[in-house]
Order: sequence, then structure tokens, then C-alpha cells
Amino acid sequence: MPDTIIYLDPESPLNLQNQIRQKLVEGILSGALPPGHKLPSSRKLALQLDVARNTVVLAYQQLIAEGYIVSRARSGIFVNEAMLETRVGYGSDIVPASGARNAAWKKRTKRPVLAGRAGAQDLPNWNHYPYPFIDGKFDSSLFPIAEWREASRLALSVADVKEWSTGSGDADDTMLVDEIRSKILTRRGIQARSDEILITMGTQNSLYLISRLLADRSTSAAMEEPGNAEMRELLRQSGASVVAQPVDGEGIVVNGDLDDCDLVYVTPSHQIPTAVLMSPSRREALLKAAEENEFLIVEDDYECEINYLDQPQPALRSMDDKGRVIYVASFSKVLAPGIRLGYIVADSQFIQRARALRRTIMNHPPLNNQRTAAFFLSLGHYDALMMRLGRVLQERRMALRDALNWMRGVPMEISPEVGGTTYWVRTPSDFDVDAFARSAAQRGILVEPVKHYYAQEETAENCFRMGVTSLPIERIRDGVARLVDVIRSQVKEQVEHLDTTTGDWLKGDDLKTAMAGSTILYQEVYGAPCTIKYHRDRSMTGVLGFSNEEQDTGRWRIAKDRFYRQWSRWNYGEEMGYSIVIDGEQVKFFNEDGQIVDTAFLLRADPGDDTKGEDSPIWSTTQRTTGPM
Amino acid sequence: MPDTIIYLDPESPLNLQNQIRQKLVEGILSGALPPGHKLPSSRKLALQLDVARNTVVLAYQQLIAEGYIVSRARSGIFVNEAMLETRVGYGSDIVPASGARNAAWKKRTKRPVLAGRAGAQDLPNWNHYPYPFIDGKFDSSLFPIAEWREASRLALSVADVKEWSTGSGDADDTMLVDEIRSKILTRRGIQARSDEILITMGTQNSLYLISRLLADRSTSAAMEEPGNAEMRELLRQSGASVVAQPVDGEGIVVNGDLDDCDLVYVTPSHQIPTAVLMSPSRREALLKAAEENEFLIVEDDYECEINYLDQPQPALRSMDDKGRVIYVASFSKVLAPGIRLGYIVADSQFIQRARALRRTIMNHPPLNNQRTAAFFLSLGHYDALMMRLGRVLQERRMALRDALNWMRGVPMEISPEVGGTTYWVRTPSDFDVDAFARSAAQRGILVEPVKHYYAQEETAENCFRMGVTSLPIERIRDGVARLVDVIRSQVKEQVEHLDTTTGDWLKGDDLKTAMAGSTILYQEVYGAPCTIKYHRDRSMTGVLGFSNEEQDTGRWRIAKDRFYRQWSRWNYGEEMGYSIVIDGEQVKFFNEDGQIVDTAFLLRADPGDDTKGEDSPIWSTTQRTTGPM
Repeated sequence: MPDTIIYLDPESPLNLQNQIRQKLVEGILSGALPPGHKLPSSRKLALQLDVARNTVVLAYQQLIAEGYIVSRARSGIFVNEAMLETRVGYGSDIVPASGARNAAWKKRTKRPVLAGRAGAQDLPNWNHYPYPFIDGKFDSSLFPIAEWREASRLALSVADVKEWSTGSGDADDTMLVDEIRSKILTRRGIQARSDEILITMGTQNSLYLISRLLADRSTSAAMEEPGNAEMRELLRQSGASVVAQPVDGEGIVVNGDLDDCDLVYVTPSHQIPTAVLMSPSRREALLKAAEENEFLIVEDDYECEINYLDQPQPALRSMDDKGRVIYVASFSKVLAPGIRLGYIVADSQFIQRARALRRTIMNHPPLNNQRTAAFFLSLGHYDALMMRLGRVLQERRMALRDALNWMRGVPMEISPEVGGTTYWVRTPSDFDVDAFARSAAQRGILVEPVKHYYAQEETAENCFRMGVTSLPIERIRDGVARLVDVIRSQVKEQVEHLDTTTGDWLKGDDLKTAMAGSTILYQEVYGAPCTIKYHRDRSMTGVLGFSNEEQDTGRWRIAKDRFYRQWSRWNYGEEMGYSIVIDGEQVKFFNEDGQIVDTAFLLRADPGDDTKGEDSPIWSTTQRTTGPM
Repeated sequence: MPDTIIYLDPESPLNLQNQIRQKLVEGILSGALPPGHKLPSSRKLALQLDVARNTVVLAYQQLIAEGYIVSRARSGIFVNEAMLETRVGYGSDIVPASGARNAAWKKRTKRPVLAGRAGAQDLPNWNHYPYPFIDGKFDSSLFPIAEWREASRLALSVADVKEWSTGSGDADDTMLVDEIRSKILTRRGIQARSDEILITMGTQNSLYLISRLLADRSTSAAMEEPGNAEMRELLRQSGASVVAQPVDGEGIVVNGDLDDCDLVYVTPSHQIPTAVLMSPSRREALLKAAEENEFLIVEDDYECEINYLDQPQPALRSMDDKGRVIYVASFSKVLAPGIRLGYIVADSQFIQRARALRRTIMNHPPLNNQRTAAFFLSLGHYDALMMRLGRVLQERRMALRDALNWMRGVPMEISPEVGGTTYWVRTPSDFDVDAFARSAAQRGILVEPVKHYYAQEETAENCFRMGVTSLPIERIRDGVARLVDVIRSQVKEQVEHLDTTTGDWLKGDDLKTAMAGSTILYQEVYGAPCTIKYHRDRSMTGVLGFSNEEQDTGRWRIAKDRFYRQWSRWNYGEEMGYSIVIDGEQVKFFNEDGQIVDTAFLLRADPGDDTKGEDSPIWSTTQRTTGPM
């Protein structure tokens, strides 16, 4: 046997026995171990590989049972000649693939296919980037491996395999349908019979079925603007004309423009891409309009279950007693997108048609995964996982909120929180967001320009979007800091710069006079007002928010003509140093590189205002790690 | 706690701990165990359920970890109130589904969906029937549970989950693609690069993608006649006009009718539904015609891997150096249709388009199943399983061939074997095959009328088709015997009947004189000639086949005016008795019910021909269990 054929990899997920087995099979099938070839004895191979003899014996036994090798009494173990007889092309020359293939595929293709988009949200390798600030992406470290394994093991019992292995025509796993009904839909306030539920290959698949069934050239379909680009593309491919209906703080605007529509697609729980939660009154208005104008509503309940910043609203489908709402949801956000499971809840007549179309396309989603998901739900893992995810994602979103304070000092505006799960960063109007996203990607940071969410791209906001669903909390701050560096390098001309060589900033006693006892006012990056007092005793106090709801204390000092300050909680409790310039009523803070990082309104220092003693500030447990600079 | 909430089922696949856990979760989520409800102590519950206390403790601990229940020091265990806060509709009244839903779905549906067909091949519960003679159906008892479990466990390692859980945009698992290239395609003589392979949700899905991409109203597509009904429907739905091209013993007929086609769909390894294997010269002719007339070939390599009666031919794709062949195959026949995995091999430009369309429809097939299948292949299980399946199915097919000899005596004709994997039974032209199939189904037997395989149904053969891919060998004979009963009851008038009351058959010495020393000649049910000699010493000998390749010996006797005979191997070695009628040169055999079961040409008994002694026949091991009556 060629010595090189078996190399045991200590890093392999396979145990030694399986590695040996795998290598031998490869050798046999590739011809490296030809039919009739004699293999070394188990003793000899064990010595050679430095493994226990039993490991080799077990690998050999399995291969004998499966017919790869045969043991002949008193002569040894051989590669089975019978095994390979039926392999066409084995040992013979194979026709090489020709480069001169000439079928004119472009001409032959009859239908347009979804145009590739170059956005970061579509990068197949997004999870190889260290800082993927793409909202809605899945964090594989949150996948419930042990629980899924348990469910998977149960689904592979003999009795269960008997049920799912043969395929089912167009039926779904009744156990999964029952679990969805009882454990998920009730949570959304939806009561559904089994014939009102269809399992799909995730939301993309659900929307494909719906658009193929309900839209053609005669269809007018309304969508949120901005809205889900995938659905817009599906509707367009079906031939429908798409009405772009604006979104405000309560969700899609309901007005006369919807009257002539046949179909309205909405994302009420977590609007794509603004994350607005549709208000109860807007929900009622939409349903009323659907009733009066006889249009259907497609409710994409995207991320409803892990969008925990607001109290969830009952689904539109739960308020609909006329069968006008087609409800779409998936397991991708909670379980994993790689498994591709979703479902549609709708009137049984629609489900019947969707089932027939699904049968034409693929028969049914894999039944082993359906049964595994059913056990996962029945064991209660889904609810537990959802709670855990909600908690983790909320922590991450708070961390992003805090870290985005680093954005002060650059000409970017952070849009007021809406759903609170994703942040929109508005750039100057002449800023090339796409080019910026590309150069950020070169530094390992992914952000998502929002243009493709707009039907009318010319009206698109000059924004990019940031989310942290896939980003561990410890990388959020670092990622934002790096992103700010990229921004600074792009907007160099627009940002005030201190010439560090000329030294045109406050020094010595001037600096101390200006700062000690002063009060500064500004709005933090999300718009909340902030007041900071630098007391003469080198303590400082800050209050933040419209109701002064956040407060912190800290210390300031002056050293080598730089002003240093350190909050107990805000700004991660770290000391930062600045060069200070007073410009009229403004105080400007510059970092070590001479870049401006903050500007505030300066109240004249009042020599008599400082009544505070030299008490140490109280260092309390952190809750917010950043805050004012 | 309501006593009824926990009932432990000894038959459940779940262990006791998981059953307790599952019931408690159900109780909590359904509201039967309301928030704040106090649960019994682990000791008390263990007593109540008669299980070890540890079993309850472990179930409680897991539920506490997941937040379903909380333990309060010195007061006990309670249903967690916080767990349920976010559940909309919990405890509140839910709007009942209205019966008066009025969306006019029929009017709203824009596209035709595949018409439901009532054939046995489409019954979702076919596997509940005891005798499903439907070719190509999967036998769940052959699913490699242990091997798939092993592969599944490996695919759920932390490192693997990291790779597949996040989804992949439109990419496939590279490990699976590599395994298909190296372990499956080489066997079919196909060499393919990764960008020439697309994973699909099985053959139906592959054909959907191909028909959507390559067929529209301007397309002329040829198909085998009879041929795959699913593909014909897909082509028609795409708007293509379908050319029905006849099939002969070498496969699809290649003539001028293909010249104007854009696309030719063929099943060369195992023609659907005739099971013909396309001959090498026909393969060459088809590829040459494709070259000259610039049409594409879709090669559906249906069941190639388990069709072991003939030597496999290399795939058309392996002979094609112009990129004209689109190759389609699946794991459904070997692994299990419930898993839904297949693949397309074609020119990379076509694959690129098919991938884009697949992304629109569903992103990608589930990656957990892709990775599991990849490990299954890499461990060599696939090859071993295929060998095993080939063996089992061949045994079953031989058993069917033997059992079908019961069909002698009924006015049915069994078509000569073609692929040898499925049998066509031709009925009299006025026979209602569909009605027959329905009444067979009422007796637990499924057979498949072939009409739906024909584009021109009026030319369809009046046949039904029988296969045994899903039928264990011990049920085949019984199933065929029952089927013959059904046939007899349907064709009562057409079958010669003996009036058992008048007793118009040979008796006593007349019977002995007629049979002893006689020789009878006939053709067996598949057309092979057979000669049987009834020697005067009550032994008998038989030779069967065009080269007398099968022989058997046995004993005959006469008792109560009936003629009894027993072969050593043929006819399952069982003794059968007949009433005999001589009608000119014919001898007719009637069973106990007076039904004719066999007819043969009688050679005059020659008193001097019997030179054989009274030696006992040699009872040898059976190989063929049936044969001549």
C-alpha cells in the first residue's frame, strides 16, 4: 500500500477509525488501491499509523461488511474485485471536458433571472469578515447544536424514518404542522387549521409561490417604499406593476393609492429595511382598506419573534376574519437559514393552490428536516431558544447604540431609532455610499447601503444601514471605531483639522482657566441633550436625555497641554485625551491625530459655581458603556 | 397540577425525562399550567409517575435553565411568569376562523397548477397498502439509518455547523459537490468541474429549473412516447409544444422528427415507463443528431444506479464534448426521496443561470442535508448501500417474475422483459384498466395503469405496470395471487369455466390413461417454450426456455378424480390439484373453483416411451420458485 495514502489528521472531526475508513474508501474508489490489492495486516497498519490495533480492526470490519474489501483465510485482506465491476469508467480513460463547448446559452435562456446585486447583504462569504454590520444575518455560534442534535436523533428513529423517508407526494409532516399551530401561531394570536398551513423552503420560497400564483401582467401590487428588494424583484418578474407606497413612523401609509391594488405586501413586525413596527391603528386601517377595495395582504412576519425592543403586536392575520391575509414566516432567524424552513398560513383554498405549485417545483421540503424541527418544537427548545436570542440580540443592539457615539465629530447623522434593531447612518448628500461600503469592506467591515430597497432609486436616502444580529458583543465597539477611521479618511477635507505642528490650541493655564468650572452643552449622536460640568475639584458630572434619565460622574485632568477625562461608565470608563480649541461660544475637541472628534456649546465658567468637595465619584456598575465623549 | 397532564407512553421514542419535559412544556404553553402555578416537588412527581426521582430532577433542571419554570428557595418550583409575557394572545380569547371567507381564489390565481392525477403512483399513502406494486417507490426499511445517523452527527459538529448554518446565498456545499464529482460522476464516466454542478431538491426540482429556463411558447421539445408525465406537464406549463417520439427496444427513435426540436428529453438508463436501456448505437445517433440539428439533450439518469439487470452504459453526458447534454440525477432512489436531494451537471453557463433561478425560488437546498450527504459519501456508505440495494432489488424482481406465472389462464399478456425491472401486463382491449386498478386497491393491491405516460392517450396501450422496488420479497407472491383473484372476478365471462355440478371432466381410468406417459407443450407466461413429460412411474420432468436452460423434476398422482403434481423447485415446490378436460389436441387444467388456469398442447401418450425407472427425483436447492404450472 502506498505509504502516503493514510494521513491521520488530529484536527479532523472524524475519529481515527472513520479517518482510516474514509482514506481506504478514497484509495479504493480512486484506483490508488486497485482491485485485488493486498492490504497490510491490522497489526502492521496499526504500528505504521501509531494507533490501537482495535481501531484498524474495526475499520477493516466495517469495510468488509460493506463489500469494499474481502478477507481470505490464511492469505490476508484484499480490495474486493466484485465491488468495482459495475463502475463505468473505472480504470479507463475519461473524456476530458472540452473547452470548445458551443451551446449559445444566453440566446437559449427563455426567462430573465434575478439580477445579481453586488451589495454586502448578498456576499456569500459575509461571515468571513470580522465586522459584518449587516442586519438580519445569522450568528452560527447561536445555533442550538445540542438541542438540534437531540431532535435529529429522535427523527432518525426507525419508526420516524419509516414515516418520512418515502416522500409524501405533496403533503407536509403532520407533526410539524401541529407544532407550528400550537406553539408558534398561538403566540402571534393566529388560529389555523392544518389545511391552512403550508411548509416552505423559507421566506424566499414562500414569496416565490405567492408571486407566481397571484401576480401577472394584469396585477397591481403595492409595496412599502423603501421595502424588501427580493419581493419587488419577484413581483416584477411575474409581470406585476409595483406601486411604491411610502412608510412613516407607523408603517405603510394607507391612502387612496392602495384602492386600485390587487395585492399589498407589508412587513408589519419589523419593516424591511427601516425596522418600523406597524401601529395598531395602521393595522386596522390597512385591513379596512383591504375589505373595502378587495385587495389581498401578504404579511411577511419577518423577525417578529426576536424583535424584542417593542412589545410584539398580534399579527394582521389574527385580526383578519375574511381570509384576506396571507401570512408568511420562517425558522431562519431563530433556528438557522441554512436549514431553510418556513411556512405560509392562508385560506385553505389558497394553500391548496400553493401546495400544487410547490409539488410542481420540488414535491415538498425535506421531510427529515420537517420531522427534526417538529421534535425541536415539541421538546420546547424553540421557545427557550427564542427567549435566549431575544436577550442576546437586545444586548448587541444596546452595544451598537453605545458604540455609535464614536460617530460624533464626523459629518454623519444617525437616524432616530425606529424599531431600534438597526441603525441608519445618513451621509452628506455628495458622499458616495457604495464606494465607502467597498473601502470599509477592504478593512474587514461590512455595512449595507440602502439604495436597493427603493423602487425609485433616485429618491433613495444617502444612507447606509448597520445591524449586529451576527456580531458578538466584544467586536462591536472595535468595528465601529474602525469604521469611524474609514469615514475620517474619506471625509478628510470636510472635517476640521488641527495643525499639530503649529500648535494652535489652548495650553498651560489658559487651558485650565477655560475648562475648570465650565459647563458644556450638546446633543448626543441620537439627538438627546447632554450637559456636562467640569468642576474645579477635577470631578465632573454629566446628565443625558430629555428627562435627564442618564447620569454619570468622572474625573478630569490636564497634562502636557492636553485635557483628559474619564467617566465611570460612559465612554467605556476609559480615559481619553484631547487638544482643546475655543472658537467663540464653541469648544472643540481634537484627537491625537488632530482630527476633530467633538464640538459643544460652552457656558462661561463661573468662578463661584463650584460648591462640590473633593469626594470621589461613586463608581457604580456599568450599564451603558459609552455616552458623551 | 392536573393529574392528567402527564401520561408516560412506554411506546414513545422519547425517554422518560424528555416525555416529562415535553408534557410540562405543552402544559405551560397551552395554559393548562398557568404562570405562577406551583409544580409538585420532584419527589412527589416521581412517586406519582412511578419513575426515578433523578428523571424528574433532570427534566426540572433543563426547564429551569430554559426559563420555563423557576425555583424559589424554600417555597418550591413555579411556572415562570416572565416566560409568557411576550406571548400575544396567551390567555386571551382568540378570534375564531370564520367560515365566511370570501376571497375568490379561483379567479385570483394567475397560473395553472399541475392537475391532480388520481393514479396509484400519486397516492400519498401508497405505503400503507400491503401490496404496492408501483415501480420506483422507495422501501423505507432499506434506508441506511445507522450510516445516515453517523453522517448526521458529523455534520452537526461545531465546525460544520459554523459553515452551513448561516446560509450561503446561492452557493452549494463544496464538500458535497466534490464528493459527487469524485464518487458518483466518475462511475457514470462523467468528468465535471465544480461550476458545472448544481445541487437541487431532487429530479422534479431539476426538471422544473430546466423547463423554466429553456422552454417557452417558441420551443419545440421532444419526449419519449410513452414518457415521463411530470416532465411533459412541466414543458406544457412553460408553453412548449411537445413532440411525442416513439420508443423501441433500443430507446427513443432517432429520425427526422427530431430535426426541428430545440430540446430532447430522454431517460436512457431506465426509460420511463418501459424500462428500456438505450443501446450504445442509439446513444451515438442521438448525440450526432443533436450536433447536426443543434438541439439540447436533457438526460434524466433515472434509477441508473440500482438498475442492475443490465450492465450500465456510460451516461450520454460522458460522451458529449460539446456541452449539449444537461444531466439530471438524484439521491432519491438510493438514499430516500424524503430527503429531496438531486443535482444537475451541465455547461457552466447553464449552471450559472439555473443557480440564479434557484436562488429566486428558494436560495439553496438545505445545507445541513447537503453536508450530511457529503459525509455519507465520504465515508463510503453510498457505494456500499447502492450495492446492497442493487442486490435486494434484483431478488425482488426475480420474485415478481416468478410470481407472475400465476397469470397463466387469465386473458392477460405479460410484455417481454425490457429493462427487466418492471412488468407490463396487457389486458384485453375492452378491459377497463382504471376500474380494475381501483378495485385492486380495495383489496390492498396497487398497480399502475400506464395511460398517463402517453401524450396521445388514445394510442396508449391497455396495460398496467407492476414493480416491486418497495415490496419485501415475502409479500410478492401473495400479492400477485390476490391480484389474479381480482382479475378472475373481473373477467369471469371471458374465462372458460367448468360446471362442477355436471362433472364434465376426466375421471378414474380415463384420467390416468390420458395423462400417464403424455407430453405437453406450451409457452410460459413470458413467451419461453416449455415441455413437460408425465412419466408412467409418476415422476415428471420439465424443460423450459429456448435453449432448455431450466429444468426441474417432480411427482404426479391421481386422487378423487383430480390430477395432482408437485415440482421440486418450480411453482414454489408446492403440490397443486386440477380437474382435467381434453378438448381435441388441447389439455385444459381447472382449479377447485372450476376456473381454467392453464392450457397446453397434448402430444399423444406413447405406451412405449417410458423407459424411466421408479427412481426418486432429485430434490435440489431451489433457485426459481415458480415456473410451469
